[in-house]
Amino acid sequence: MHLDKRRNQLLLGTFVHSKSQKELEIFHNAAVAVDANGKIAAVQRDCASLDVAKTQTLATLGWHVDDIDIYTTKESQFFFPGFIDTHIHAPQYPNAGIFGKTTLLDWLEKHTFPMEASLKDLAKAHKVYTAVVRRTLSHGTTTAAYYATIDVAATNLLTDLCRAIGQRAFIGRVCMDRPGINPDYYRDASTAAALGATQQTIDHIRAVDPKFDLVAPILTPRFAPSCTSEGMKALSRLQAEGGYLAQTHISENTNEIKLVRELFPEARSYAQVYDDHGLLTPRMVLAHAVHLTEEEGSLIATRGSKISHCPCSNSSLTSGAARVRWMWRKGIEVGLGTDVSGGYSPSILEAARQAALVSRHVAAAYTGDDENERERLKLTVEEVLHLATRGGALCLGLEDRVGGFEVGKDWDAQLVGLGRVADSGLRDGEEYTANGHGSGAAVPAAGAVPALNGSDEGNVDIFGWESWDEIIAKWLYNGDDRNTKKVWVKGRLVHARR
Amino acid sequence: MHLDKRRNQLLLGTFVHSKSQKELEIFHNAAVAVDANGKIAAVQRDCASLDVAKTQTLATLGWHVDDIDIYTTKESQFFFPGFIDTHIHAPQYPNAGIFGKTTLLDWLEKHTFPMEASLKDLAKAHKVYTAVVRRTLSHGTTTAAYYATIDVAATNLLTDLCRAIGQRAFIGRVCMDRPGINPDYYRDASTAAALGATQQTIDHIRAVDPKFDLVAPILTPRFAPSCTSEGMKALSRLQAEGGYLAQTHISENTNEIKLVRELFPEARSYAQVYDDHGLLTPRMVLAHAVHLTEEEGSLIATRGSKISHCPCSNSSLTSGAARVRWMWRKGIEVGLGTDVSGGYSPSILEAARQAALVSRHVAAAYTGDDENERERLKLTVEEVLHLATRGGALCLGLEDRVGGFEVGKDWDAQLVGLGRVADSGLRDGEEYTANGHGSGAAVPAAGAVPALNGSDEGNVDIFGWESWDEIIAKWLYNGDDRNTKKVWVKGRLVHARR
Repeated sequence: MHLDKRRNQLLLGTFVHSKSQKELEIFHNAAVAVDANGKIAAVQRDCASLDVAKTQTLATLGWHVDDIDIYTTKESQFFFPGFIDTHIHAPQYPNAGIFGKTTLLDWLEKHTFPMEASLKDLAKAHKVYTAVVRRTLSHGTTTAAYYATIDVAATNLLTDLCRAIGQRAFIGRVCMDRPGINPDYYRDASTAAALGATQQTIDHIRAVDPKFDLVAPILTPRFAPSCTSEGMKALSRLQAEGGYLAQTHISENTNEIKLVRELFPEARSYAQVYDDHGLLTPRMVLAHAVHLTEEEGSLIATRGSKISHCPCSNSSLTSGAARVRWMWRKGIEVGLGTDVSGGYSPSILEAARQAALVSRHVAAAYTGDDENERERLKLTVEEVLHLATRGGALCLGLEDRVGGFEVGKDWDAQLVGLGRVADSGLRDGEEYTANGHGSGAAVPAAGAVPALNGSDEGNVDIFGWESWDEIIAKWLYNGDDRNTKKVWVKGRLVHARR
Repeated sequence: MHLDKRRNQLLLGTFVHSKSQKELEIFHNAAVAVDANGKIAAVQRDCASLDVAKTQTLATLGWHVDDIDIYTTKESQFFFPGFIDTHIHAPQYPNAGIFGKTTLLDWLEKHTFPMEASLKDLAKAHKVYTAVVRRTLSHGTTTAAYYATIDVAATNLLTDLCRAIGQRAFIGRVCMDRPGINPDYYRDASTAAALGATQQTIDHIRAVDPKFDLVAPILTPRFAPSCTSEGMKALSRLQAEGGYLAQTHISENTNEIKLVRELFPEARSYAQVYDDHGLLTPRMVLAHAVHLTEEEGSLIATRGSKISHCPCSNSSLTSGAARVRWMWRKGIEVGLGTDVSGGYSPSILEAARQAALVSRHVAAAYTGDDENERERLKLTVEEVLHLATRGGALCLGLEDRVGGFEVGKDWDAQLVGLGRVADSGLRDGEEYTANGHGSGAAVPAAGAVPALNGSDEGNVDIFGWESWDEIIAKWLYNGDDRNTKKVWVKGRLVHARR
């Protein structure tokens, strides 16, 4: 580890996190103390004032005010847990927004495999991986479960960049050992070669981060059609030996499901294929799960495997609308994935927003006559923000380390700040100008006077009369990276906006 | 008019606009000359160089370089027509993002009517209306068809603010003259009072902008359930006399449709209600149209009425997925509406993005076996950007004035600029710092060094190898107001980012 000797930190003000799937907890006049190892050492809530919170916390811990860094929320600001992206393809980031009218299988051929293959060029990989790590951090993603490529050196570079830039990450070298289905220019030469290459990326992570404090390996059979039976079974054995997480895709698209049926005629279902190969375990994250049958849902729940819901991607690639309420009722844990670049956006806030919207398409398509059931199919603000934080932590086995503000957890968090509308209707720092000079006027004077936007606080406009529930809803629906003012991972400040 | 004497302008560089529903036209090394009245005087395309474009245009027009203002696109920048919002409720802007699990009718009661009623306080109206005009302009909306409230003074204030700030607008005082359905605290006292109040707002617009150069009235029966038969008929007569545009809602929500059936039992359908009252004319803009029957679609097409597609709103309020391809096949002209605050976002770019996604939900729900038909139901990048510009112009009867770059049209346009990723993977202006000082390093040095994001070019990352089609797709899917660098309406520069 090459971390410097860090100071203790004290965070003061308003904090918001998930209490349960259904409920957010908002506490004011609070203090969270973070020690030099990045762990939450104390939480002091609902004090009479910030001063009381501060004084009590320091006294309890025996910390001195001169030895610590202090961050205090201003008006319309709050601390929120860092987002967790349970499914993102780092090498596809340059293709974000590029998918045209394709669906999964032709999209892979046309856009995805060529881009991934090209990242064996390490200079290109450095550019792309730096951009995706920096960009996701700037959106508040403190933990990402990455698919890399099949290339060992580029995958190891992604590991190094996450550590240097400071993002918590799972790094998955993609296994694609089946000839015929994978393109010849982009596949593992053999099952043995695939296993050897995966082991090399695990060894690299173990060498630089022996306890997997920040970066950990994740076994990544791309999806059943990409893999041989032998390859999947070998990964299952590797998982049993090393206790690693694993990730793959399931039931994203109807043509993909047909292909799985053709390739694995002996299996009852897509989920059964993974189960037959020993991969349906509590340490498996299954992305998409749009078209699961009742039987598959029950099997996944029984095995304790997790689902990464990727609404942006499913809408973009015409995959359909996944049913989160149905998954929850089955007893399956669910997190959110951006699925860049099937999903166009690297933002988990956007994924949470789209999860809410997609659940409304599920509800609108409900054909029964139980109006209450239709209502229940919708996801609330509280529920999608739970998916984005504690839900993701549960998927990745991190529920004891991140996702909320409790003593003993790591300080993986973001400071969120929203814009306030002045009585003039303008934003702080915004003004009308004549010929580029500020006028201070509330309405432009006669003549052509553009209004220049000075401070850029983003698109959330707080008028001053909103409740805290409404403020959070406004952030969910119109927030973006401009509202993520600072980001910490494991106590380290890794992103800050000027 | 209190416009100053303006100079001629010359726009140089890359221009993008819709050629047809299916096709964008991209021209480089081009010049557009805009005269002091804001009209396009010349368009010079595909020259050998920018210098040639500039010199030829000036020579043709006899303009001298010292007498004009010149704007030139930089790398990854282009001029694009201003967006047209065919459906937005100005007084609801403070509620953007606040809708919870409501659907149309309870949302009106809980969130919307109280907010609208409160804007008879003119100080509040000034704050809210300034914010919505400034905010929509900053997103590139050069024309907006506004619903105001029932209040005359506040509606006239919206007129004045649009003129002062410089947005092209249709201003609609909302008619709600039916007792029992509208809340007693927020309705017109009588049909006569409603007509009188509407006339006052028209008179005000005529007084300040006699030729409706920038601001024009739009007759606004809120929706059939809000209005008496007498009221709708009177508005129809007023429209026939004055030639005004009109706007209303149709077939947004199944409970609303039921209510219309109860209130107007003699009509065959919701569309028939408007037709029976003389309101289904080529000058009518119908918002939503989610659940239209075949017969209603044909009736609307026959009458030449237009539809404002509001995908954000329809997804948010669980209204369903409107079928744009179906409308186009019927021969109906369609534009986009943000429908703030049923829609959470004031951005037409977001509406275009959601139009593409919603069309994919329509396609995913297609149950026939014609795979080609399923594909055809999807809207392309080109099609949704057409909806956002020329489609909107057609809806509002402005197709000869705005929506594209042709001689004789007004210069209603935006300068779009996208961010470029350096070889380091960082953005221009972004750097790693140690203790707040720039380091110039490509990777942070050992120790806790946050990366500060300096210039803020938004979320579109151009890597340098993209085609122009891909660049436009990236803008559609990840663009926001940061990418709208400058906005002109009728030749006047009305918004610029620092």
